[in-house]
Amino acid sequence: MAKIITLGEIMLRLSTPGFERFTQASTFRVHYGGGEANVAASLAGFGHHAIFLSSLPDHEIGTAALKTLREAGIDTSFVDRSGERLGLYYLETGASMRPSTVIYDRARSAISEAPVDAFDFDLIFKDADWFHWSGITPALSRSAAHLVKVACEKAKAHGVTISVDLNYRTKLWTPDQAKAVMTPLMSYVDVMIGNEEDAERVLGFKPPKTDVLQGQLDLDGYKTMFQALKETFGFSYVASSLRTSYSATHNGWKALLYDGNHFYESKTYDINPIIDRVGAGDAFASGLIHGLITATPAFAIEFGAAAGALKHTIPGDFNQVSVKDVLSLVEGNQSGRVQR
Amino acid sequence: MAKIITLGEIMLRLSTPGFERFTQASTFRVHYGGGEANVAASLAGFGHHAIFLSSLPDHEIGTAALKTLREAGIDTSFVDRSGERLGLYYLETGASMRPSTVIYDRARSAISEAPVDAFDFDLIFKDADWFHWSGITPALSRSAAHLVKVACEKAKAHGVTISVDLNYRTKLWTPDQAKAVMTPLMSYVDVMIGNEEDAERVLGFKPPKTDVLQGQLDLDGYKTMFQALKETFGFSYVASSLRTSYSATHNGWKALLYDGNHFYESKTYDINPIIDRVGAGDAFASGLIHGLITATPAFAIEFGAAAGALKHTIPGDFNQVSVKDVLSLVEGNQSGRVQR
Amino acid sequence: MAKIITLGEIMLRLSTPGFERFTQASTFRVHYGGGEANVAASLAGFGHHAIFLSSLPDHEIGTAALKTLREAGIDTSFVDRSGERLGLYYLETGASMRPSTVIYDRARSAISEAPVDAFDFDLIFKDADWFHWSGITPALSRSAAHLVKVACEKAKAHGVTISVDLNYRTKLWTPDQAKAVMTPLMSYVDVMIGNEEDAERVLGFKPPKTDVLQGQLDLDGYKTMFQALKETFGFSYVASSLRTSYSATHNGWKALLYDGNHFYESKTYDINPIIDRVGAGDAFASGLIHGLITATPAFAIEFGAAAGALKHTIPGDFNQVSVKDVLSLVEGNQSGRVQR
Amino acid sequence: MAKIITLGEIMLRLSTPGFERFTQASTFRVHYGGGEANVAASLAGFGHHAIFLSSLPDHEIGTAALKTLREAGIDTSFVDRSGERLGLYYLETGASMRPSTVIYDRARSAISEAPVDAFDFDLIFKDADWFHWSGITPALSRSAAHLVKVACEKAKAHGVTISVDLNYRTKLWTPDQAKAVMTPLMSYVDVMIGNEEDAERVLGFKPPKTDVLQGQLDLDGYKTMFQALKETFGFSYVASSLRTSYSATHNGWKALLYDGNHFYESKTYDINPIIDRVGAGDAFASGLIHGLITATPAFAIEFGAAAGALKHTIPGDFNQVSVKDVLSLVEGNQSGRVQR
Amino acid sequence: MAKIITLGEIMLRLSTPGFERFTQASTFRVHYGGGEANVAASLAGFGHHAIFLSSLPDHEIGTAALKTLREAGIDTSFVDRSGERLGLYYLETGASMRPSTVIYDRARSAISEAPVDAFDFDLIFKDADWFHWSGITPALSRSAAHLVKVACEKAKAHGVTISVDLNYRTKLWTPDQAKAVMTPLMSYVDVMIGNEEDAERVLGFKPPKTDVLQGQLDLDGYKTMFQALKETFGFSYVASSLRTSYSATHNGWKALLYDGNHFYESKTYDINPIIDRVGAGDAFASGLIHGLITATPAFAIEFGAAAGALKHTIPGDFNQVSVKDVLSLVEGNQSGRVQR
Amino acid sequence: MAKIITLGEIMLRLSTPGFERFTQASTFRVHYGGGEANVAASLAGFGHHAIFLSSLPDHEIGTAALKTLREAGIDTSFVDRSGERLGLYYLETGASMRPSTVIYDRARSAISEAPVDAFDFDLIFKDADWFHWSGITPALSRSAAHLVKVACEKAKAHGVTISVDLNYRTKLWTPDQAKAVMTPLMSYVDVMIGNEEDAERVLGFKPPKTDVLQGQLDLDGYKTMFQALKETFGFSYVASSLRTSYSATHNGWKALLYDGNHFYESKTYDINPIIDRVGAGDAFASGLIHGLITATPAFAIEFGAAAGALKHTIPGDFNQVSVKDVLSLVEGNQSGRVQR
Repeated sequence: MAKIITLGEIMLRLSTPGFERFTQASTFRVHYGGGEANVAASLAGFGHHAIFLSSLPDHEIGTAALKTLREAGIDTSFVDRSGERLGLYYLETGASMRPSTVIYDRARSAISEAPVDAFDFDLIFKDADWFHWSGITPALSRSAAHLVKVACEKAKAHGVTISVDLNYRTKLWTPDQAKAVMTPLMSYVDVMIGNEEDAERVLGFKPPKTDVLQGQLDLDGYKTMFQALKETFGFSYVASSLRTSYSATHNGWKALLYDGNHFYESKTYDINPIIDRVGAGDAFASGLIHGLITATPAFAIEFGAAAGALKHTIPGDFNQVSVKDVLSLVEGNQSGRVQR
Repeated sequence: MAKIITLGEIMLRLSTPGFERFTQASTFRVHYGGGEANVAASLAGFGHHAIFLSSLPDHEIGTAALKTLREAGIDTSFVDRSGERLGLYYLETGASMRPSTVIYDRARSAISEAPVDAFDFDLIFKDADWFHWSGITPALSRSAAHLVKVACEKAKAHGVTISVDLNYRTKLWTPDQAKAVMTPLMSYVDVMIGNEEDAERVLGFKPPKTDVLQGQLDLDGYKTMFQALKETFGFSYVASSLRTSYSATHNGWKALLYDGNHFYESKTYDINPIIDRVGAGDAFASGLIHGLITATPAFAIEFGAAAGALKHTIPGDFNQVSVKDVLSLVEGNQSGRVQR
Repeated sequence: MAKIITLGEIMLRLSTPGFERFTQASTFRVHYGGGEANVAASLAGFGHHAIFLSSLPDHEIGTAALKTLREAGIDTSFVDRSGERLGLYYLETGASMRPSTVIYDRARSAISEAPVDAFDFDLIFKDADWFHWSGITPALSRSAAHLVKVACEKAKAHGVTISVDLNYRTKLWTPDQAKAVMTPLMSYVDVMIGNEEDAERVLGFKPPKTDVLQGQLDLDGYKTMFQALKETFGFSYVASSLRTSYSATHNGWKALLYDGNHFYESKTYDINPIIDRVGAGDAFASGLIHGLITATPAFAIEFGAAAGALKHTIPGDFNQVSVKDVLSLVEGNQSGRVQR
Repeated sequence: MAKIITLGEIMLRLSTPGFERFTQASTFRVHYGGGEANVAASLAGFGHHAIFLSSLPDHEIGTAALKTLREAGIDTSFVDRSGERLGLYYLETGASMRPSTVIYDRARSAISEAPVDAFDFDLIFKDADWFHWSGITPALSRSAAHLVKVACEKAKAHGVTISVDLNYRTKLWTPDQAKAVMTPLMSYVDVMIGNEEDAERVLGFKPPKTDVLQGQLDLDGYKTMFQALKETFGFSYVASSLRTSYSATHNGWKALLYDGNHFYESKTYDINPIIDRVGAGDAFASGLIHGLITATPAFAIEFGAAAGALKHTIPGDFNQVSVKDVLSLVEGNQSGRVQR
Repeated sequence: MAKIITLGEIMLRLSTPGFERFTQASTFRVHYGGGEANVAASLAGFGHHAIFLSSLPDHEIGTAALKTLREAGIDTSFVDRSGERLGLYYLETGASMRPSTVIYDRARSAISEAPVDAFDFDLIFKDADWFHWSGITPALSRSAAHLVKVACEKAKAHGVTISVDLNYRTKLWTPDQAKAVMTPLMSYVDVMIGNEEDAERVLGFKPPKTDVLQGQLDLDGYKTMFQALKETFGFSYVASSLRTSYSATHNGWKALLYDGNHFYESKTYDINPIIDRVGAGDAFASGLIHGLITATPAFAIEFGAAAGALKHTIPGDFNQVSVKDVLSLVEGNQSGRVQR
Repeated sequence: MAKIITLGEIMLRLSTPGFERFTQASTFRVHYGGGEANVAASLAGFGHHAIFLSSLPDHEIGTAALKTLREAGIDTSFVDRSGERLGLYYLETGASMRPSTVIYDRARSAISEAPVDAFDFDLIFKDADWFHWSGITPALSRSAAHLVKVACEKAKAHGVTISVDLNYRTKLWTPDQAKAVMTPLMSYVDVMIGNEEDAERVLGFKPPKTDVLQGQLDLDGYKTMFQALKETFGFSYVASSLRTSYSATHNGWKALLYDGNHFYESKTYDINPIIDRVGAGDAFASGLIHGLITATPAFAIEFGAAAGALKHTIPGDFNQVSVKDVLSLVEGNQSGRVQR
């Protein structure tokens, strides 16, 4: 059991039930989630001591988010309670050729305005093993970008391994803005996760020519890109999940990892139907981290890919799976036979 | 933005949730819909001034139907409030090899008994661009058939383009009855929409030998039939959607259009899973009308086919889509990637 | 209309809605079911006089189970009301590569403790045509195994045909225990139903080498096994359903029957999506029994396979289908076109 | 356990959830009920052999109604399956000063068109103890009124006790029509149930001056009216429930019975909140019948009043209570303490 | 039918179902509402031509709000589509001694940033009869306060009657801020609505000494205050609803009106249970406006009080009642008897 | 913030929605709760370090219970994972004169079979302030009674204050059994909580003659009984909540406390409607403990009574309230005015 810290935003998610469009819904399903919170939830579910750092407004909706974190087994001792609002997003779940759509309403959320001194980083990173963050957090605001930088410095000072998920979001910033903020932060990173689109927009790397809509993957292109990323930034590991989008409810899914020596490629999963694909990338990152901490890169990429695949079958942002659930899939049990 | 009138019945639809059979349901999902109302809803959603003509009983269930029309942006100024009952139908949604089933309880609905003078057709058709009706309305009753005839005469007198969707319904009348009533009405029609089954039963045209259950389409047969229909009745356009039924939740879908010169064939959509296929034909008709009014036949058939395809992914009778939604699919975005 | 008796346990089933995991559910869907009750429900639905024998605690949850049986048209006159508790099981419905899981909480249920004299077997089997039980009941407890033995004796004494579904359950007993109890009971059986796994664990027969996960069926192996079973135990018929598990929501499905002369193989069904696969084996057994009683073995295997296929599309344990529904599928209507 | 027959209509009831108005509802709660079916359900729940006579269309909605009857333990052997439609009604549940409202859509239902020879009355009434009907059935149609008359004749010929609930419905007929049809039918009746409004409109008796809205009951007036009714028609018993309407969710409730010698007055119940008052009168009639069959008039009026009071706390038309439940209330347990 | 304009904010309202606390909810009920939108909805329901002026973001949640307005019959032709977000609020419905609570998240909503030239006031107020706004709108932002001022000027220039509901909101501004902004706006107002708390905080008037928690109303004090308000600002009418809060689910309710000559006092309503009290003040204002437009002050105060009382029984912000519904209550039908 | 330990059983609770009877429910609402878990949840909600000791089976339903504990902020570090099953109970919520009913199915639950060495009591009670248990736990089994005894010994050895809630349960044991087990355990107890019924059945004390159904409380009788209890067992405090049951949805509620010097009587609450009264006694105990730890007996009895009153308005077993919520009610805010 490792001590793992993640830092970021948790939002209220409001999704329409039964494939209804936004304009049809008379109820919204309530979940709470966000990239780094999702990673903390997965890692707590795998048995680690997962600490999530964020800021939540001191009202009952903020408390509801906090309770969801606690329910998942996350250590919320260091969550700051301040700020005016909880960021939120609306999710309409697509089907077949109708895509899912997301509407963000997250500007000026508590974490985007949280001061650095809201977190006692020396206490937090003491004896910690891992720190994970994503490119979403520095995109929220200048102060959030600064918070990430300070956290990275402190983590490094405590000898903590750092992973990042680039997670480029068009609605939060431009590629130029992203590059300006993210490039210097890469110097702290040991494990870099990002798909071809992220790598291009955030770090300016030309991606492989893969047409993700058609499913033909240029694996050599990925390998070349991963090598270049590793060389440029000195990452220990470069990883990516790869999604082939056949429709809103049918995807292919696999993952790649490069450790400087070997280029690991996971099994491919054919996911049909997809119940909820939000958080699949976070589930992959969590599985990869778990695998790297507890076993080998070869295991880590399979564990991460399987964890990410399972997330597609589970409602909500959090990946509600155990190590046992993931191992069962890693070991080949894809048949879905009833366990009784 | 065109002024478009549709005339017909809107029913209460009671459907079972969660793939339950009728005998299992402890709740029914409530929707309101009907062929011509569905077309009006789609066209209002595309930005047109859509007027729906019908009659609704002057009680709260009638008012609920009216509010649903208004919510969709339909102009309900000319809806008559009279009659004893709102027609209704029960819908059990099938899955895999279990078909969806419909039980009608629509006899003696308000519109089937509405008098001609309930509608001020001269006011209604003044400056109008298009009038759409379907073969369901004259099948309801003699008075409804008469109403359609008068409406067609008035529309023609005002120079309004007229489209029909043949929409043969076994439970409402026999082929002989349909032929007797529908054939003379064809003289008013500019744009005729109907699949091979409709054409045979309503107009007596021998359809192509296509086995719709197997998916092999005899396109030459359709072309021949469309030419014959056009020549016989003088239609400007003949169009049809084509459905290949693999199962209750998996269909193929495309559409054809003939304008006397060219024979247009849309892209084929593979729809899996189907969320709700009721109203797909109406969605196609609406898209076709929108395309013919605003652009070219080549655009119209693609726009209609895509609109119809999207309807399969949306609960309820109404196609809750915007022009932007349909264009996105026309332009090839079938991958269902999350829009964020 | 035949008089048919089944004997066994009916449980409360608590399932999670909307593909939620157990740890997410804030409501459970309530159904009542169990192998032999499911068979009685199907047969009542086919128009037979179906009597279910069981014991239910004399409280309102027991009464709720009873009302569900009555609703299905089952004759509950002989249900004993005693015991402390209704057995129950929790069901989490899987999706794609995530399997469904079952947690049993059925120990010390009313039927597992019911005394033999709770049932007036001479009255019950008088003029009866068929008696069906499954391997689950003797696995519940020693007293339940004894109850089955007495019932078989009485049924035989009244000249009633007896069928069994082996239904091996790992969580209830070991193969050795099963063999010790079940082997002597086989002497009463006329129609034996069991898949390759059941035959091996319960009766010690080496199954065909078929890899059910991959879908290649060794039909010759089945034939050989069926012949051996028939010869060893003197069964009139040996039958099995065959499931190919592609995923939790996508299965292949067919059935086999051997009558000593011919080896019958049903059509194969591709079931996608699966709505609820619990009770499919019971639905097959019911269809087979109906077919054998009313028609020929050739018809019986097709009717049974189609009945079992349809069950996959219906929520709950009971197969809510009529003879007409099944015949429609037997006759080839797999296209799922709306019936209107 | 007595053999009791009731005859009438069972309808689909569609009610809005959560105090929504008709125009707000996106789902309807599904129940099946109707005066005489409700009485049969109560009496079956009290342990009697209750037979319900009606006609249901031979489609799945008709079957759903049938299954609800069976679930309640009613003998449905004699239910006719014919006709075009199941009558239905919409129910909006009021609260505080907003009244509940009902919209009927029951014209031309199966039972209103059922022929007399659909029922083998000699078989049905053989060894029967009681026949109950209400004034709703003859109000449905001429043929239904004739059916009631024939049933009464047959019941009398078999020596069966007959009870009626006058149940005047403004929306079905006028007082004059009611009087013309109902007065001759009174000659068959032994037990007459009807409130002051019914007695006035159906039988032309001047009611007591009680202002039911204010709650002051003129008991002497009732006694006088009951005596006059008894003398005029030769009833053995005259009974009535009395409701004081404070609001849609708060009522007072009691009942009166006259047997020619004594005038019995039940306890008064203060019911707040009311969960569902539909069927309370039927629950009262059922309790009264049970009491008269099994005990004394003094017991019967208390049992009937308590049964009716309990119905107000139970969703749906049927009174889901046991003899034990009712006795507990009769014996004074009104405190609602948790039973654990 | 009058032409009536209202201007303000419409928000998404997210409420917990079944009396759950915020921290328990796994779904939120979705409604859209806000003071001035609620007034427009009521007036449209009473048959007036009600125009609502606001600004909604050009995304699907904004469109959902728009559709709700259209469904209610409101003319949305002049709704501006711009801005970043739809304001929202969370509502937890209390019970007994647990109060309902509201959490606002409405800062920087579209209407708070809408420019004056988004509305063509000359076109809007042409031939208009009435303009209604509330103290919430100028409290949103400086630009919103300016918008209200311009609208008042334009309305006055077109001879339109202006009403205001003071609606003081602690969470939006301080009494000093309110006074500074609102006092000059009073010069445009003809009909002033506000309770004693509003009058004190917004206009600085010392309220009557009434203890609203105890229910003893100092009517003379109200009269004195109303007279002073009228004299100071030259209002034609001063009105107020009066609420006595016994608990979250039990209130008393009445209303007062002063026209310079008479002091009108409505009936008192005892509302128990309350289903949803949000929007009751808006419902009162709407009823008052309807009454003043169509009849006399004496009628108006009763119609307004009854409309407001009914709102307490209806879920959501909008008062889903017709003139007929309100008249029935005005005329004394408080008994809640079922209408059938 | 005190360190407080509670020990007992947590069960799955399955309750019917919408006042449905058990036999009507097609879904059950899922909660997890039990006396001592409820106390831990309340105390965690008040900001204390609350540790719950129990045993949960190592399957997903056990994990679901665990997650609910964590969500409430309870420290679950010492929860044992072993045993076969989670105890459960069925709850039907009554209304008006229909009582709520409970059906237990808790025999042989994990905690009833947990060995003493599953808990490291020395570690658990180190620096602890308070230990709370109830009479339910020793009633479960001999081993559970032994576990409680050992826990009390260990707590005493660590100088921890011990409170008990007698909580007599008829369905678990007889008064004689209770007396035999509970009397010796009283020697460890500092704070004894129990109503008059508990005191009589568990400790053999003659209760005051109060008729709890009628609401007249014999306070002098309580005082005398409390004094006798204190003298006999040497309790520091004796406390009781007092409930007056008017109906299932309307109760009076208050509380009493005796500390050897003063006899404290809280305010009386009139609770109408009751949303969920399960756990109100536990909520009272929690409030009392909080009050005694942080303030005075006079404060404690008011805080406990208010906490218990609020529980009646909240669904589920846990009292979802903060110190602020309770203080607001203690300070007199019973009016339920919306907080906005």
